[in-house]
Amino acid sequence: MTLLTTLADILGPQGLLTDPADMARWTNDWTGYYPSVPLAVARPTTTQQVSAVMAACHAAGQAVVPVSGNTGLNGGASAMGAIALSLDRMTAIRNVDPDSRTAEVEAGVIISRLHDAADAHDLIFPLTFGARGSAMIGGALSTNAGGSNVLRYGNTRDLVLGLTVVLADGRIMDLMGRLHKDNSGLNLRHLMIGAEGTLGIITAATVKLFTKPRAYATAMVAAASLDAALTLLHRIQAATGGAVEAFEYMPANYIDTHLRITPGTKAPFADRHDVNIMIEVGATAPRDATPLDDGSVPIVTLLEETLAEMMEDGLILDAVTAQSEQQRSDMWARREAASEVIFDRRPFVNTDIAVALPDVQTFLTEARKRLLALDPGADDLSVVHLGDGNVHYTAYPSKEDPDLSAAIREMVDDVVQDLGGSFSAEHGVGLSKLDSMAKRKDPVALDVMRAIKDALDPSGILNPGKVIPPKR
Amino acid sequence: MTLLTTLADILGPQGLLTDPADMARWTNDWTGYYPSVPLAVARPTTTQQVSAVMAACHAAGQAVVPVSGNTGLNGGASAMGAIALSLDRMTAIRNVDPDSRTAEVEAGVIISRLHDAADAHDLIFPLTFGARGSAMIGGALSTNAGGSNVLRYGNTRDLVLGLTVVLADGRIMDLMGRLHKDNSGLNLRHLMIGAEGTLGIITAATVKLFTKPRAYATAMVAAASLDAALTLLHRIQAATGGAVEAFEYMPANYIDTHLRITPGTKAPFADRHDVNIMIEVGATAPRDATPLDDGSVPIVTLLEETLAEMMEDGLILDAVTAQSEQQRSDMWARREAASEVIFDRRPFVNTDIAVALPDVQTFLTEARKRLLALDPGADDLSVVHLGDGNVHYTAYPSKEDPDLSAAIREMVDDVVQDLGGSFSAEHGVGLSKLDSMAKRKDPVALDVMRAIKDALDPSGILNPGKVIPPKR
Repeated sequence: MTLLTTLADILGPQGLLTDPADMARWTNDWTGYYPSVPLAVARPTTTQQVSAVMAACHAAGQAVVPVSGNTGLNGGASAMGAIALSLDRMTAIRNVDPDSRTAEVEAGVIISRLHDAADAHDLIFPLTFGARGSAMIGGALSTNAGGSNVLRYGNTRDLVLGLTVVLADGRIMDLMGRLHKDNSGLNLRHLMIGAEGTLGIITAATVKLFTKPRAYATAMVAAASLDAALTLLHRIQAATGGAVEAFEYMPANYIDTHLRITPGTKAPFADRHDVNIMIEVGATAPRDATPLDDGSVPIVTLLEETLAEMMEDGLILDAVTAQSEQQRSDMWARREAASEVIFDRRPFVNTDIAVALPDVQTFLTEARKRLLALDPGADDLSVVHLGDGNVHYTAYPSKEDPDLSAAIREMVDDVVQDLGGSFSAEHGVGLSKLDSMAKRKDPVALDVMRAIKDALDPSGILNPGKVIPPKR
Repeated sequence: MTLLTTLADILGPQGLLTDPADMARWTNDWTGYYPSVPLAVARPTTTQQVSAVMAACHAAGQAVVPVSGNTGLNGGASAMGAIALSLDRMTAIRNVDPDSRTAEVEAGVIISRLHDAADAHDLIFPLTFGARGSAMIGGALSTNAGGSNVLRYGNTRDLVLGLTVVLADGRIMDLMGRLHKDNSGLNLRHLMIGAEGTLGIITAATVKLFTKPRAYATAMVAAASLDAALTLLHRIQAATGGAVEAFEYMPANYIDTHLRITPGTKAPFADRHDVNIMIEVGATAPRDATPLDDGSVPIVTLLEETLAEMMEDGLILDAVTAQSEQQRSDMWARREAASEVIFDRRPFVNTDIAVALPDVQTFLTEARKRLLALDPGADDLSVVHLGDGNVHYTAYPSKEDPDLSAAIREMVDDVVQDLGGSFSAEHGVGLSKLDSMAKRKDPVALDVMRAIKDALDPSGILNPGKVIPPKR
């Protein structure tokens, strides 16, 4: 019996796709830079089916690439010649427990569905980013996705209490649970999260839920400089006791592009400003969300007072506070259009890096200077999770030229390394950052990663060629 | 040249102890249950010396047990016949950076020294527990220590941004950094934290610091039941937006024992109560800490109002709020006397388990019932980080009998497993929980741990015989 016949037996009629037309959805991600044709697409519906598929592929030495929402930006789910193991039919939200504030979900649950399920209990699952309507929990776990609320709630790994993982040879590893303290041996949960499917396939997870903020204060702020913006962040964190949920920087050319590609939208301010910040503060305590006699809400008043003080000091040039849910939603829509804004022009070189907060301005200045030295006709655009020091930096070279693109990536990595930053903040490594891993990551750490990979997947069938570069 | 000569050359005159009198401090921990005589005590002063020691021991196939403050409770630092590698001379606080709110410290820094260093900048390092005056940061990292503030700030691993680790063969792995987002490959930081020195020796770390609360509201509360106590926790978390720092349960016999062994101390209440809770709420926002016209502080008022409401409902029987720093300090002293209270009687069987919050009462009831079935003359005593579901359960069998002690451990593990809990919450595995690991941990997870251990320490020289039980 051939492997494909075995897989068809395991998965049933809808479970295995081999016709190129049926597989179209899995042949590319939406960057368009990682086209690939899988040998077949396996679509299991249970952890047991994933286990059986892996056992069969392990016996056959067949490469397997786990895929969920296919919204990654680094080619991590590119499955050329491999079995694309799609989690898209494992969509059960097994439970939402308001008492323990946890939810148990399968890997194919789309993030926004989990948002809705939590919301029904007045709770939130705080992980959020632009692709939440397509991205699935499995991919978020595999890449340790970040997003706009990391400042308050942490990265994906900080939101997870338990996992079910299928290993390369099909064994099922039970790391499930909903405990807040558990020191029973090596922490395999954190090892599997962020491994981009190279060590195992996450099929289910228990995640933390949080009290839904009772009110939000959301504003667009034009700051005099990035330093002034960081002062705002520190002041409002101090005033609210750390209640800032999002602190997002959009430079002038981001706003320009957004206006151009989004008919009917308005500029945030009458004047054009260099440093546009979207800030959101969440009030979880009732006294911050109970309307005052004048109809205002304390959390909003607190933000507005801080902004007014800073305008007097000249640190803030303009500010608009959302006065309705619609205005708040418009502010978020502008920020969440980042992918459309960034990918509006081609060719592009898109990176995702992190530096310490005070180094963000140095990074941006230095990267632009060196970009223009490499290619005087180039341009760049950034959008920054400023509260995390996480810059999405996109360069637009004047021509499509692989050598030039490589030189730009190298330049960005140089600037980041000089600042003690990371060449990959929240998008992972996938294919696109293998060279950075080889060149920038501590060589001993790389050797340890290789040793772990070899120990857990000795035939190298799990997402081969990704994340961990070969020894040179 | 013998190994000891080589080590003496590396470490210099004060760096290697072989005389039993000099080594006395390293021959036992303070539980008294894990006596051991090391071959020698190596006391390096730099990461480079640790590296050279490990390279030499690796070449000689010599077992090495890293030791820091020796305050562990599970025998994890017991070094019979091994080189005890003591971090006690690596005591530099390399920097405290208020801007990035981080500190870079060597592994031998005593926790309370780091508290003081942070306090000088009006910041806190939130990890705290009774042994903080002896315990060192290296041991806290290796065991992923918990303590009393986990509810608000997380376990030790959540407080760490970077590590330096020396591997079994002496290679130095650089995982240092102070980034809030970093997805550059497998997460080796979380793998090393909590590994109890079986995969590498942590020599330095970058840890997070936090804004020092501007005021605390601290109270002793007699709740009508554990369920009522959990209702209090949920209500005060909701009212303060999640500002509860500690929520500690002490049963009546804890209070009795504390009174008996602590001359001059007073009972918390006029009457004896079953459910005594110490609660502390920290106010980080100025408006919660600014004295009102009547001299009270809003955070205290908020706590007192919540307590008053619950007294009316009959859920709380009595409550005392600390009116001065001295009263607060007395409340903490009672809770932090836990080790003296627990270890006042012998023989004992001390365990540290976690269950979901609503299951704590079930655990306590069931464990006592089954304890008395095993040994009608036995007694027990618990102290509980109730906000984390973390129970320190101590049984006092009527006689010293290894079989009976083993049966009691087994019984506790049975109750925990039935409730989906963990047999090790915050003290790690060490020697004392190897049987629990073998019997209770998912067998696939155990195999994965063994594979990782073999990959990173193929000769098995790092803290041999701890944490990961051999394959049966």
